[in-house]
Amino acid sequence: MTTSLEELTRLTDAAAAAAPIWRASSADDRAAWLTAIADALDAHVDELVEIADRETRLGATRLRGEVGRTTGQLRLFASVVTEGSYLELIVDDAASDATPPRPELRRMLIGVGPVAVFSASNFPFAFSVLGGDTASAFAAGNPVIVKAHSGHPELSRRTAAIAADALAAAGAPDGSIALIEGREAGNALVQHPVIQAAGFTGSVSGGRALFDLATGRPDPIPFYGELGSVNPVVVTPGAAAARVAELATGLVGSFTLGVGQFCTKPGVVFIPADTGFEDVVAASVAAAAGGPLLTDRITSAFPDGIRDLLTDSSVEILAHGAETADGARPVVLTTDAAAVTARAETLLAEVFGPVTLLVRYGDAAELRAALAAVPGSLTATLHSEPGEDVADVVELLQLRAGRVLFAGWPTGVAVTWSQQHGGPWPATTSLHTSVGATAVRRFLRPVVYQDAPEALLPAPLRDASLASLPHRRNGVLQVPSA
Amino acid sequence: MTTSLEELTRLTDAAAAAAPIWRASSADDRAAWLTAIADALDAHVDELVEIADRETRLGATRLRGEVGRTTGQLRLFASVVTEGSYLELIVDDAASDATPPRPELRRMLIGVGPVAVFSASNFPFAFSVLGGDTASAFAAGNPVIVKAHSGHPELSRRTAAIAADALAAAGAPDGSIALIEGREAGNALVQHPVIQAAGFTGSVSGGRALFDLATGRPDPIPFYGELGSVNPVVVTPGAAAARVAELATGLVGSFTLGVGQFCTKPGVVFIPADTGFEDVVAASVAAAAGGPLLTDRITSAFPDGIRDLLTDSSVEILAHGAETADGARPVVLTTDAAAVTARAETLLAEVFGPVTLLVRYGDAAELRAALAAVPGSLTATLHSEPGEDVADVVELLQLRAGRVLFAGWPTGVAVTWSQQHGGPWPATTSLHTSVGATAVRRFLRPVVYQDAPEALLPAPLRDASLASLPHRRNGVLQVPSA
Repeated sequence: MTTSLEELTRLTDAAAAAAPIWRASSADDRAAWLTAIADALDAHVDELVEIADRETRLGATRLRGEVGRTTGQLRLFASVVTEGSYLELIVDDAASDATPPRPELRRMLIGVGPVAVFSASNFPFAFSVLGGDTASAFAAGNPVIVKAHSGHPELSRRTAAIAADALAAAGAPDGSIALIEGREAGNALVQHPVIQAAGFTGSVSGGRALFDLATGRPDPIPFYGELGSVNPVVVTPGAAAARVAELATGLVGSFTLGVGQFCTKPGVVFIPADTGFEDVVAASVAAAAGGPLLTDRITSAFPDGIRDLLTDSSVEILAHGAETADGARPVVLTTDAAAVTARAETLLAEVFGPVTLLVRYGDAAELRAALAAVPGSLTATLHSEPGEDVADVVELLQLRAGRVLFAGWPTGVAVTWSQQHGGPWPATTSLHTSVGATAVRRFLRPVVYQDAPEALLPAPLRDASLASLPHRRNGVLQVPSA
Repeated sequence: MTTSLEELTRLTDAAAAAAPIWRASSADDRAAWLTAIADALDAHVDELVEIADRETRLGATRLRGEVGRTTGQLRLFASVVTEGSYLELIVDDAASDATPPRPELRRMLIGVGPVAVFSASNFPFAFSVLGGDTASAFAAGNPVIVKAHSGHPELSRRTAAIAADALAAAGAPDGSIALIEGREAGNALVQHPVIQAAGFTGSVSGGRALFDLATGRPDPIPFYGELGSVNPVVVTPGAAAARVAELATGLVGSFTLGVGQFCTKPGVVFIPADTGFEDVVAASVAAAAGGPLLTDRITSAFPDGIRDLLTDSSVEILAHGAETADGARPVVLTTDAAAVTARAETLLAEVFGPVTLLVRYGDAAELRAALAAVPGSLTATLHSEPGEDVADVVELLQLRAGRVLFAGWPTGVAVTWSQQHGGPWPATTSLHTSVGATAVRRFLRPVVYQDAPEALLPAPLRDASLASLPHRRNGVLQVPSA
C-alpha cells in the first residue's frame, strides 16, 4: 500500500492547519496530549506486541519492553514541556540610558511547523511511529507526518490509528498525526513546502538520499538523520589481564542482542595482541544464539557484508555462534590494527546483524593510529583499569562519538534528561540528538519580541508566566522555587 | 591576493593542531583570550577605522561605533563562557534499582573543531574577521579560519594580524586564527575535512553556493548562513492616522541608514490605501542623503535591482532623495497588495541599497494574503495602536521572521543575551542565530559520559565544578548562588 500524491496533499494540508494550534497550545494541553498517547499505547500493548512480533520476529519480551521504553519516553517529554526550560526564555529589559538606547527584548523558542519522521526497522516502537522523533516534535509543538517503515506496515497503521484516536479524544486538532507509506511518498514528503524539518533513523544510503533532498530544496530544511555507527570498543592490556572472561561474555551478549540489529552494536573491538583474548571470545560465542533478521533485505545483506570484509586478506573468521535453522548465525572476525589504519573504509563498514570484528593492536601508537581512522559513531567504549594512562585514548574516543562509556556495553540506551544519541558523520547528520530531553531543540526556532505590548506577547513571555518558569533576565538565570 | 591551496593546507593543519587546546581550555583562559582580542581592537581603533573608511566609505563615526559594538560582543561572549550555562551540563545519577538499571550519565557541550567564517561586506568589523561568528566560535572553544571579504582586504589583514598577536600574547596556541583570501580558497575551505562548521553573512546566491558545498561534502557539516531579508513593516490604519509624520521620518531614516546596506533594512512597507501616507513619505525622503555604496558590484546592482522592480507594471517611483554626486540616491517605490500576492518572487526580491517599496492594502484580508507571500526575513515590524485587533497579523509576522518589533525600526540590532538574528529561509539556513549569547550553540556538540571515573571526566562535569556552574541534575535545574 503506497500513499498517492493526492492523499499526501490532503495530509499536508491538514498538518498545516494543525500547526498554529500546536504552536500556541499551553504546556498543560501539550503534556496531556503526550500522556494520552502513552496511555493509549499501554492500553493496547497486547494487541500491538502481537502484530509487531509477527512482522519483526523480535519476540514478545523484547517488544513489550520496547513499548514501556516508548511510553516512558512520551511521558519524559511531557515533563520536559511542563518544566519549561526547553522554551529558553530570555528577557533583557530596556535600557534607555545605554548607548545606543536598548529596547526591551523577550526571546523564546517556538515550534518550526509540521515535521516529517522516517521510522526505523529495528525499533518498531521506540524509533517508529511514536518514537523519539515524533515525541520530541510533539513536545516542541508541531504536528507530525510519519513515513512508515516497510518492515512493519500493519503495526505502523495500527499505532498511528491508536495515536490519532487518543489525540482526538484529548482535544488535539485534526491533522496532528498522519501516516504515509512508500518510498515515492517519502521523497515527496521531505520536499513538501509544508514540512519544516525531518527526523530519520536508518541506513547511510537511505539517510544520505533524503538528506540531499532536504538540503537541495529551494528552501532547505534541517534534516536530523541517524545513519550508521560501528561503535568502537577499546580493551586495554590492563582490562584484558584483569577480567577477560567478563569482557568476552559482555561483548558476545552485546553484539548478538536483538540479533545484532541495534544501532549501538559494538561492531569493532580493539584488543591487545597476544593476550589470549580471542580464545576466550571464541569459547564464549560458541553457544550464542542467532535468529531471524528483521527484513528480507537485511537477511541477504548480512552474508554479503561478511563476505566483503573477508575479501581483505587480513580478515579471518575466529568463531561462529550456535547453528540456527532460521536466520543469521553469530560470527566473530579478526584483523589487526595496521590493516584498519590502512583500509578503514572497507574494514569498518557497518554490517547489520550479529557480527563483530576484533582488531589486535601491538602498542599504544598502533591503537591511536587505528582509532583515528574510525568513522563517527554513536558510542565509543573504553574498558581499562585504574592506574592505566588512557587520557589520549579518551580524547580520541570523544572525537569520534557522542556517548563515551567507561564500563558496560553500548547497546542499552537509557532515556533520560542527559542522554545523547548522536555523533560525527555518519552517526548523525547534525549536532543534535534524537534521544533525551534535548531532542526537542531540533524542532524549535527562536523568535525575539522587541518592545511588544504585553497583550501581544506569547503567554510564556509575559511577566506573570516568567514567575513560574525557568528563564534568564538581564543575563541572570532564574529558577522559580518549587 | 589569493590564498593558494598549499597555504590553505598549512593553515588548516595549524587549526587542527590548535583545536584540542581550544576545546580543553578553561573558562578563565578562553574568556581572557576573547577579552585580549577586544582590548587589542580598542587599542588600534584609530588605525583600523582609517583603513576601514578608505575601503568601505562608511564614515568614521559609524565605523568607530561598529568597533565598539564588536568589542562589546567579544566581551559579552567572554561573560557567556564564564557564566557557564552554555555548556548545558546535565547529570543523571545511576539508578541501580531501575528496570533496566540506569548508568550514571554526564552530558556537556564541547567545541566541534575548526570553524570557517565567511565575512560580510557591510559590517567590516561586526560581521567580519572578529565579528559575531568568530567571537561565538572562539567562545565555544574552536579555532577559526576567516575568508576575508574582497571589499575590505587591507582591513581584514590588519585585523587578523592584531588578533593573532593578541592571542599569542595571551597564551592561546598557534593556529587560533587565520585569514584566507579569494573565492577558490573559500570554496576549498568549506569543503576541507578539518573544517567542522561554517558561518556566513552575505547574499542569497553566494550563501546558497557555499551551503551546497558544505552539505554536499562526503561528511556534511552545518552551514550557518545569513543570506537575505526584506524585513517587512506593517502600518495599521490606526497608526497611519495617529502618527504618520513620525512613521515617515522613522522609515526614511531606517531604509537610508548606512546607505541602505543593512541586512535589517525595511525593504517592504505595507500601508493602508487612501490615507495620504505616500505623500508624507515623499516629502520626508526628499532631503534624505544617499552616498557611495560599498563595492563596485553593489553599486552596479542597485540600479539593476530597481529596474527589475519597475518592469512590473504595478510598480511606480514615488519619490527620490537628494541628488548625490557620488553614489546611490534614495528612492521610494509603490505598488499594491494584490500585485505582491500574485508576484512576490519578483516584487519582494531584496535590493541592497537605499530603496524601499510601499505596498498599499485595502483591507485586512488583502494585507494577510500579501503577508503570507513575504519570504522569510530577519525581522518583521508592526506599527499599530492600542485597541486594534492585530493578533492575526502578529501570528503571520512571527511565522516569517525571527525578530518581531512593535515599535521603532529594525536597523538597530542590540547585542544581548536574548537577541536573535535569524529567520526562515532565505533569512538564514538554520534554526540558530548569529547574534546574541545563543550563537555559541552553533559551534558545539553534545557528548555524554557514561559511568566515567571522575579523573577521566572533562573538568566541568566533575562534582567539584558542578557546585559553581549552572546544571541540571536528575531533572532539576540548579543555579549556584553568586
